[in-house]
Amino acid sequence: MATLIRQCRPRGEGICDVLVSDGRITGKGADLAADGGVAVIDGSGCVLLPGLVDAHTHLDKTLIGTPWHPHSAGERLIDLITNERRVLTELDLDPALQSRRMVHHMLERGTTAIRSHVDIGTDIGLRHFHGVAATREACTDLVAIQIVAFPQTGMMIMPGVADLMEQAVKEGAEVVGGLDPVGIDRDPKGQLDAIFAIAGKHGCEIDIHLHDLGEMGAITIDMIAKRTAALGLEGKVTISHAFCLGDIDDARLDGLITLLRDNDIAIATCGAGHYPIPPIRKLRAAGIRMFAGSDGVRDAWGPLNNGDMLERAYQLAWHGDTRDDPGIETMLDLATHGGAQAMGLADYGLDVGCRADLVLVEAETPAEAVCYHPPRRMVMAGGRVVAENGKSLLPAP
Amino acid sequence: MATLIRQCRPRGEGICDVLVSDGRITGKGADLAADGGVAVIDGSGCVLLPGLVDAHTHLDKTLIGTPWHPHSAGERLIDLITNERRVLTELDLDPALQSRRMVHHMLERGTTAIRSHVDIGTDIGLRHFHGVAATREACTDLVAIQIVAFPQTGMMIMPGVADLMEQAVKEGAEVVGGLDPVGIDRDPKGQLDAIFAIAGKHGCEIDIHLHDLGEMGAITIDMIAKRTAALGLEGKVTISHAFCLGDIDDARLDGLITLLRDNDIAIATCGAGHYPIPPIRKLRAAGIRMFAGSDGVRDAWGPLNNGDMLERAYQLAWHGDTRDDPGIETMLDLATHGGAQAMGLADYGLDVGCRADLVLVEAETPAEAVCYHPPRRMVMAGGRVVAENGKSLLPAP
Repeated sequence: MATLIRQCRPRGEGICDVLVSDGRITGKGADLAADGGVAVIDGSGCVLLPGLVDAHTHLDKTLIGTPWHPHSAGERLIDLITNERRVLTELDLDPALQSRRMVHHMLERGTTAIRSHVDIGTDIGLRHFHGVAATREACTDLVAIQIVAFPQTGMMIMPGVADLMEQAVKEGAEVVGGLDPVGIDRDPKGQLDAIFAIAGKHGCEIDIHLHDLGEMGAITIDMIAKRTAALGLEGKVTISHAFCLGDIDDARLDGLITLLRDNDIAIATCGAGHYPIPPIRKLRAAGIRMFAGSDGVRDAWGPLNNGDMLERAYQLAWHGDTRDDPGIETMLDLATHGGAQAMGLADYGLDVGCRADLVLVEAETPAEAVCYHPPRRMVMAGGRVVAENGKSLLPAP
Repeated sequence: MATLIRQCRPRGEGICDVLVSDGRITGKGADLAADGGVAVIDGSGCVLLPGLVDAHTHLDKTLIGTPWHPHSAGERLIDLITNERRVLTELDLDPALQSRRMVHHMLERGTTAIRSHVDIGTDIGLRHFHGVAATREACTDLVAIQIVAFPQTGMMIMPGVADLMEQAVKEGAEVVGGLDPVGIDRDPKGQLDAIFAIAGKHGCEIDIHLHDLGEMGAITIDMIAKRTAALGLEGKVTISHAFCLGDIDDARLDGLITLLRDNDIAIATCGAGHYPIPPIRKLRAAGIRMFAGSDGVRDAWGPLNNGDMLERAYQLAWHGDTRDDPGIETMLDLATHGGAQAMGLADYGLDVGCRADLVLVEAETPAEAVCYHPPRRMVMAGGRVVAENGKSLLPAP
């Protein structure tokens, strides 16, 4: 089955046709022939983007598809964690169904690749992991999903969690996670040694949540960098959020940037209007790999994340007062190529031969696409049209 | 001509029908009769909101309708002001056409009332004012527009500007503006005396841009409050942006809040992810009137403001990490009733008798409407359906 997208503008550049066959981009050029049997989509001069990448989210815990849940937690991180466990226990949702619903929600908005942190705990065991793994399997033709084994309720303070995380990796979690080794576990040596031991033993990647601000966060980055070098894990480690990079003085920041670059450690950001976030343009200029995510969407942490990565790129621009086109395009890069690189998607992009994960956006330039983030005109996942005019064409899970 | 909106949920509450006749809400209830000739709109359980109110914008300077303009200015306020004059001179746009285009853009997103600051300067004279006044006249059936005579390039540093502003008020500007009396004019006494003299003489309201941070902003508020009391202008003065309220210590803030309340001075905010903004919930809890606006949309100040007030309410929630429903609804209130009150729209709201400025949003609750801000299902302005499914039904200006 082939599809010809007529008169679109890849990344906002000159108008051309894009031919898709067997799930891949097989041709680009002016006035490509549409043989019999080729479906034709009118690109109408829209900007064509590669599929959006949401490389930091929590598919397992969303409340999507259930009645509106007014936010009920206190403000501290520990309040949010405790409240979430209470809510999820009360609602008794199925992580497979919830993650599937969220995948459809994200596809509708143009996201075709997802790195999801998934809760592992002594209370829930591997239940969430198995649910998201089922969704990963069920949706494999539509969306690439990477799973991070994530100790949401703590790791060293919850004996048994590290073993469960290792078990998840054995069963197919591509990434081992972590959570505020100082702030939550109060045992940075213990948590980081355990995480890196799992990665060293199983060859998986690492992606550690780090909300801790100031020097508490900074020493954690020091420790992560040291272990990355010791184990030769350069290029395989991500620090998510890393609020401390937006919250320390320039001299300390410059030192950390050197460490991140020398050890090729990536930084994931979700924006977060109310927190200091890493200075994106400074980090990127220094050669640090960065990518973006929605964080948890419509879950017990709150309703403010809505799972639209084009809007998330906008929020990153808004957060840093980034008004120029190259800067806005950098934010879009975090939500496209940056995430794809982190996820190791080798056949990602708009070149001939790439997987046909494509998004048509009614806009004149990529910057305009980000600023207005209108409903996606068309979303194609692996060559299949899955949404039109902002509405999913897939059967509801 | 009458229209019946079936099965909608005013402000997210119980399902009912809403009858509109002769531009006003004339009935609300279950299963209202649709007599012959009554047009019926299927509300489908959508949330019904009153028309959104954008009570701080700059209709005269938008570049909308022209090719995408990559942002080109430096970062300082004065760079932005100077750059804008250069861009506007080069493009030579018609303020009447541009403001008309922006009104249509805003209507499409559900905005039915607008307070627009309009540039007055010795270089441009009253050209922008006359343009927006023409739009105000042409669109009077669709949208309420209030004009603020605004000295964008300075007031005391540009002799003649105060006289032009007074002339604009004589010709129908409802509000006299101002701009950073310390930071731009470096003559707070001069600028504020001139503004209050115009207001005292002509009985107009006052709305002063105040970007100055910290104590520079705080002393300006002191001075505005003193003059408000002296002239008995309580309830007629607004301070726009007032970043300093997000940038001073609690004791000074509490003193300013008392001043604002005692003199019934309103605060307008546009969010601005990268600046300290007034602490909305604290000010509202103290009884301060507040309202919201888009600020300049797609203009030479940058492309980040997109003219969607439902999304702007979301950005206000995002900025302050406001996750609970009452808090999110407060942000929506700033974009609806707060602005309507400031603009003196007596017949605003969802009660029988109110002007039929109505917005249908596919959502379960007002908080969900804010968090997802989907394309508006239907926008009605003065009883006329002007947009459906996010697309304007009006002829392009």
